[in-house]
Amino acid sequence: MGEATPGIAAALERIAADIDHRFDLLLAVPDDPRRVLYHAMRHAAIGGGKRLRPLLVVATCDLFHVDKAAALRVATAIECMHVYSLIHDDLPAMDDDDMRRGKPTVHKAFSEAAAILAGDSLHAMAFELLAGEDTHSDPFVRAELVLELARAAGPAGMAGGQMMDLAAEHETFDLPTVTRLQQLKTGALIGFCLEAGAIMGRVPPEGRTGLRGYARDLGLAFQIADDMLDAEGSAAAAGKAVGKDAAAGKATFLSLLGIERARAQAQALVDQAIAHLHGHGPEADLLRAIARYAIERDH
Amino acid sequence: MGEATPGIAAALERIAADIDHRFDLLLAVPDDPRRVLYHAMRHAAIGGGKRLRPLLVVATCDLFHVDKAAALRVATAIECMHVYSLIHDDLPAMDDDDMRRGKPTVHKAFSEAAAILAGDSLHAMAFELLAGEDTHSDPFVRAELVLELARAAGPAGMAGGQMMDLAAEHETFDLPTVTRLQQLKTGALIGFCLEAGAIMGRVPPEGRTGLRGYARDLGLAFQIADDMLDAEGSAAAAGKAVGKDAAAGKATFLSLLGIERARAQAQALVDQAIAHLHGHGPEADLLRAIARYAIERDH
Repeated sequence: MGEATPGIAAALERIAADIDHRFDLLLAVPDDPRRVLYHAMRHAAIGGGKRLRPLLVVATCDLFHVDKAAALRVATAIECMHVYSLIHDDLPAMDDDDMRRGKPTVHKAFSEAAAILAGDSLHAMAFELLAGEDTHSDPFVRAELVLELARAAGPAGMAGGQMMDLAAEHETFDLPTVTRLQQLKTGALIGFCLEAGAIMGRVPPEGRTGLRGYARDLGLAFQIADDMLDAEGSAAAAGKAVGKDAAAGKATFLSLLGIERARAQAQALVDQAIAHLHGHGPEADLLRAIARYAIERDH
Repeated sequence: MGEATPGIAAALERIAADIDHRFDLLLAVPDDPRRVLYHAMRHAAIGGGKRLRPLLVVATCDLFHVDKAAALRVATAIECMHVYSLIHDDLPAMDDDDMRRGKPTVHKAFSEAAAILAGDSLHAMAFELLAGEDTHSDPFVRAELVLELARAAGPAGMAGGQMMDLAAEHETFDLPTVTRLQQLKTGALIGFCLEAGAIMGRVPPEGRTGLRGYARDLGLAFQIADDMLDAEGSAAAAGKAVGKDAAAGKATFLSLLGIERARAQAQALVDQAIAHLHGHGPEADLLRAIARYAIERDH
């Protein structure tokens, strides 16, 4: 944890406990042959991860005084989507990772079939949570949340970005293409976290420009930091294998910019992200702290 | 095609053309590294399948004079969900099938990674279609469609049923458990087809009892017929490998009931399904014809 981000440690600890509690209730294991599916989902969803996306949702909802239980429900939906993407990305046919969040990946701990179905199940549950009446009394809000999450997750978002990432092992991408790849693969879902907070807060689309700018810059800064952790970090700190991008000969922000320019670029993006919040007062301090944390975290 | 189902051939032909046309527009291939993802989706989605689920949606919507373009949009969403489930079910870690709808499966024609991501993409697109404003002007209708489809697809529906089906290779299931398995694996999505038509037609939940009964009986009849095709049919007619259930030692309706009782049971379920439509006049004739077709089809 960086020293320059006071308050963020407590916020991360609290959201982690809240999300674990939600998943514990949501994923109660049934007493029938589906039990292994639920155990696989619990293995992936409970007790791990930084919960950065849920924290972004809750911090954005707080700007607009959204009901806390409803904000946490939306945050849980986004974490369902994120966890599903990690489970599928780790599969042998995809990135083939054995460790995630310091634990064996789902296909290692259970089976590939259980991993595919656990991911598919969490994917559907994300939409079930958003569409349910407890999310918001106005169905227009619920439908808009679903529409935006579906776009962020599908072929024009996360799934499309993962396809580009797999192609990066065979094609040499330039900086604009790597930027586009990351905007789809991680940027789209991070963007939805802010968008979801604005939707819940009844902010009209024309009032979301600052939050969208913040999300765009934060997403790229976060990815550059991730590239640097992959290149420099230890597997123990990262909770997963590192050095994989270089071994695969993949173009990344780091390989294209070099370490010094990459670090400077990440810092500039964080400054820019924070500048997008100029219309907000101290109530946006948590979002500012998250932006600084994004490039200071050591795991 | 059975002789006792006049009119159904034309209806199937028309819905197949409509759905192919919709998928052709929806899955326009982008000129970037995501192109293989779109080719994989097109391979699975276009030019194949009976389109029974879309026909059920459109036939139910017709009962309530739902706008035809909107009905077709909902039908396309459900077919997205169905096609995604076929792509994932065919994966080597799942049912390991090489042929589907008379063509190589997606992981055979492309790659396992492309198959996983094509399925994930179609899964998200189903919700994107339902939540979009073109589906219905009332957001309550859109949110309800999303909620019901998410439930039908997730661990309490299709994904849970597939998990049970995989467990059936190692455990010996009795008739109630096989029934439950099929109600989740195929029944939940077939049930949603009817539910979706009722939701689009603004039929309140208490007015959906007959349609739900029809869907429940049709789903089981359809599955018994599928078991019989798997046991008796030719791979050429089925467009996929047959005889797999027996080879895997799986309990099915057929193995538990025997051929004669299975056939009688399927017929009784079809009669019962049709009886649930007693409140409807000739406008429900297509639903009646679909029920008869479900056990007469030879592929």
